[in-house]
Amino acid sequence: MDDLAQVRRVDGEALTALKGELQGQFGNRYSDNTSVREQHGHTLTWTGNQPPDAVVFAQSTEEVSQIVRLCARYKAPVIPFGTGTSLEGHVNAPFGGVCIDLSMMKRVVAVHPEDLDCVVEPGITRKELNDYLRDTGLFFPIDPGADASIGGMVSTRASGTNAVRYGTMKDNVIALTVVMANGDIVRTARRARKSSAGYDLTRLIIGAEGTLGVVTEITLKLHGIPEAISAGVCPFPDIDACCNAAIATIQSGIPVARMELMDKIGVQAVNMHSKLGLPETPMLLMEFHGSDASVKEQAERFGEIAEDLGGGPFTWATQAEERTKLWQARHDAYWACFTLRPGTKAIATDICVPISRLADCVNETHKDIADSRLVSPIIGHVGDGNFHCNLLVDINDGDEMQRAEGFLERLVQRGLAMEGTCTGEHGVGQAKMKYMGEEHSAATLGVMRTIKQALDPDNIMNPGKLVP
Amino acid sequence: MDDLAQVRRVDGEALTALKGELQGQFGNRYSDNTSVREQHGHTLTWTGNQPPDAVVFAQSTEEVSQIVRLCARYKAPVIPFGTGTSLEGHVNAPFGGVCIDLSMMKRVVAVHPEDLDCVVEPGITRKELNDYLRDTGLFFPIDPGADASIGGMVSTRASGTNAVRYGTMKDNVIALTVVMANGDIVRTARRARKSSAGYDLTRLIIGAEGTLGVVTEITLKLHGIPEAISAGVCPFPDIDACCNAAIATIQSGIPVARMELMDKIGVQAVNMHSKLGLPETPMLLMEFHGSDASVKEQAERFGEIAEDLGGGPFTWATQAEERTKLWQARHDAYWACFTLRPGTKAIATDICVPISRLADCVNETHKDIADSRLVSPIIGHVGDGNFHCNLLVDINDGDEMQRAEGFLERLVQRGLAMEGTCTGEHGVGQAKMKYMGEEHSAATLGVMRTIKQALDPDNIMNPGKLVP
Repeated sequence: MDDLAQVRRVDGEALTALKGELQGQFGNRYSDNTSVREQHGHTLTWTGNQPPDAVVFAQSTEEVSQIVRLCARYKAPVIPFGTGTSLEGHVNAPFGGVCIDLSMMKRVVAVHPEDLDCVVEPGITRKELNDYLRDTGLFFPIDPGADASIGGMVSTRASGTNAVRYGTMKDNVIALTVVMANGDIVRTARRARKSSAGYDLTRLIIGAEGTLGVVTEITLKLHGIPEAISAGVCPFPDIDACCNAAIATIQSGIPVARMELMDKIGVQAVNMHSKLGLPETPMLLMEFHGSDASVKEQAERFGEIAEDLGGGPFTWATQAEERTKLWQARHDAYWACFTLRPGTKAIATDICVPISRLADCVNETHKDIADSRLVSPIIGHVGDGNFHCNLLVDINDGDEMQRAEGFLERLVQRGLAMEGTCTGEHGVGQAKMKYMGEEHSAATLGVMRTIKQALDPDNIMNPGKLVP
Repeated sequence: MDDLAQVRRVDGEALTALKGELQGQFGNRYSDNTSVREQHGHTLTWTGNQPPDAVVFAQSTEEVSQIVRLCARYKAPVIPFGTGTSLEGHVNAPFGGVCIDLSMMKRVVAVHPEDLDCVVEPGITRKELNDYLRDTGLFFPIDPGADASIGGMVSTRASGTNAVRYGTMKDNVIALTVVMANGDIVRTARRARKSSAGYDLTRLIIGAEGTLGVVTEITLKLHGIPEAISAGVCPFPDIDACCNAAIATIQSGIPVARMELMDKIGVQAVNMHSKLGLPETPMLLMEFHGSDASVKEQAERFGEIAEDLGGGPFTWATQAEERTKLWQARHDAYWACFTLRPGTKAIATDICVPISRLADCVNETHKDIADSRLVSPIIGHVGDGNFHCNLLVDINDGDEMQRAEGFLERLVQRGLAMEGTCTGEHGVGQAKMKYMGEEHSAATLGVMRTIKQALDPDNIMNPGKLVP
């Protein structure tokens, strides 16, 4: 299989000309100001800043198409940008080029309550969308933690705490409008809830991280806001018991909405940060959606399963205020981590394994954290076998950073050895490209490369990401 | 966008040589006997028989790869075959070539009860799989009616009666092994329940109808057999009331497992065929899965919704025997149709529209059936907006066949005009290729063609299907 086309950094007169054309067309929605460029060349992780040559704030699909056509003429890289909350260097511009900032495209184009769907522009964030939907009785469930843009969530195939019930982005997108590498505007599917009419271009673009096209409109599935919610926390003697309870819960058909694992050090962190007084042992944080009777029954049945497996007591509530208090631990988890090592930075990473291997994987990872003299709570979307390490590191300590890198490498190897994946929901970006050849066979990667080459022959769409 | 490569029918000495090589390698698992070839060149519909030049009964992924490599050398068409239950001419061989019959590949490679998944070969049928799983407490839910092979169900992106609860094939496949056009064996993903590591090749192959590769192994999601099931029938005054009840049911968050619409003539047919005495008016057939308490509650809540909308009484039961009796109408529907016009053939077709348009679409279709002097019950997976017409036609009556063809054409146009798709679950095959250019824009079809060309440059994989 051939390599992808060599990416050429546009510079000199060509760059001046390209920038001039963009500025002429987009006026004050164009910028090559250093601080704007740097703001668009960062991620939340420790990856270095790699700014684009210019940033354009697009307002419509047609404008995105114009920008991409122009870039195609110059063979200049195109990097789509939503909120910049991605974690693996997805929006860095290692070869410069033009960043298309989609944050001005945040219209809700249509809501169809009877069809339980809506059509939105990519720049709207999930919280903005849910605020907009509030009066309809509907909501968009996918919750990756950060208030990411819907376009970004499409592009990384995001999921989060309630994927166990509502699925991931791949399960909640009906259709997309995408600007391809040649500027063509492609609508991937119609608004019917299912179709067998041709290749699933929708799913091909979901998770493609902008390397095949720029998403400019999204038709999303919506769900009815549940009539009732019950939620609670349940301590367990160890990680194995947590995982066994999770498996038994799913096997028994309880339609759990959220089921989050928090390890002992995670609980210690939230106790310190939020003065919670939780028992410092691994726990599951649970949430159930349904009718009044159903969420009560689900919570009770989970409580019995937990007790059978040595866990409990399961403290749960249905009133909003009490529920919020019980779930405070989970909501505060990210910021609470820093109380474990004030002044450090967090390296957030994720892997995902078959749930039967989750306990082994978490236990081995705990041992590795200790052996590597690192500090990292583990928090997991246990219903999916997906978990996060949040490494708290002193990025100025070379020795520690080396130990952290060794740990991250082994974490992925451990996941892959257990039939897992190097990323369950964060995506590949720059940082996990080196694992693509281990996760996939040469033939599988070959197919990905063939598709990339065919649809983006000059390799201008977010180059240096995803496909090695 | 270029056209696909011209398909060359292999004949003369080349064909003799190809057949000789296959016979040499596969012995009595090779056949070019006319009746075997014709058996593999038919579908369940009225499309004519187009037999392949030879049929090989493969026993492993490696064998499939050998056959495809050989065919690639001769540029001979490759047509994968499961059970032959597809409805749109998917297994016809308009350019001859080699049919790979996968019916001997029906092993269950692994069942992972804790992960709720299994690994199977493509030739196993859904009923065979569920028989195999019976003692595990798990089941595979997708039910397209026919006892199709899992490989065929992957390839047509099948769904059926309980997609409203469990999704379609795209939602229930974790990973695939696929033999590509060059003979490469590609594993699309690992066994983790979700992943963001690269392009979604799994979903690209699902629904590709064998035009990109031959599926040789499937990792499927399984579900716990529900603790309890309630089911029943509910008559409504008209189609609008049925559809409004369906919409209200879904909006209210009742996790309905099956919700089938049967029109008045459909009810008349099952009354005649099975002596049921049902009220001859449109009805919904419902099924609920969950705990004992939950299925009771779901049925009661549906009953209230139905009553509010002028329907009912909703007759339901939880005991297996009574449930079966209530659902007998739906089970007998296909064969019961023929009592409406004994001696005729059925043309089964499907479209899918946003559920808000379903009542309009069905009502207009009823009028068209009457105006066209045709006979066709309408049965629908109403939770998805997907419905079927089962045209009962005298295929020797040229005038009637012409009216039927006009009707089928208008049915698709009507669906497309309502933001729907020309096929919700049957697939494109040969028969619906002519609609692909109406359903999708030239740019969208261009992307599909680019992918097909890139992955199958000689156009040997099931040519003459899906991509026009």
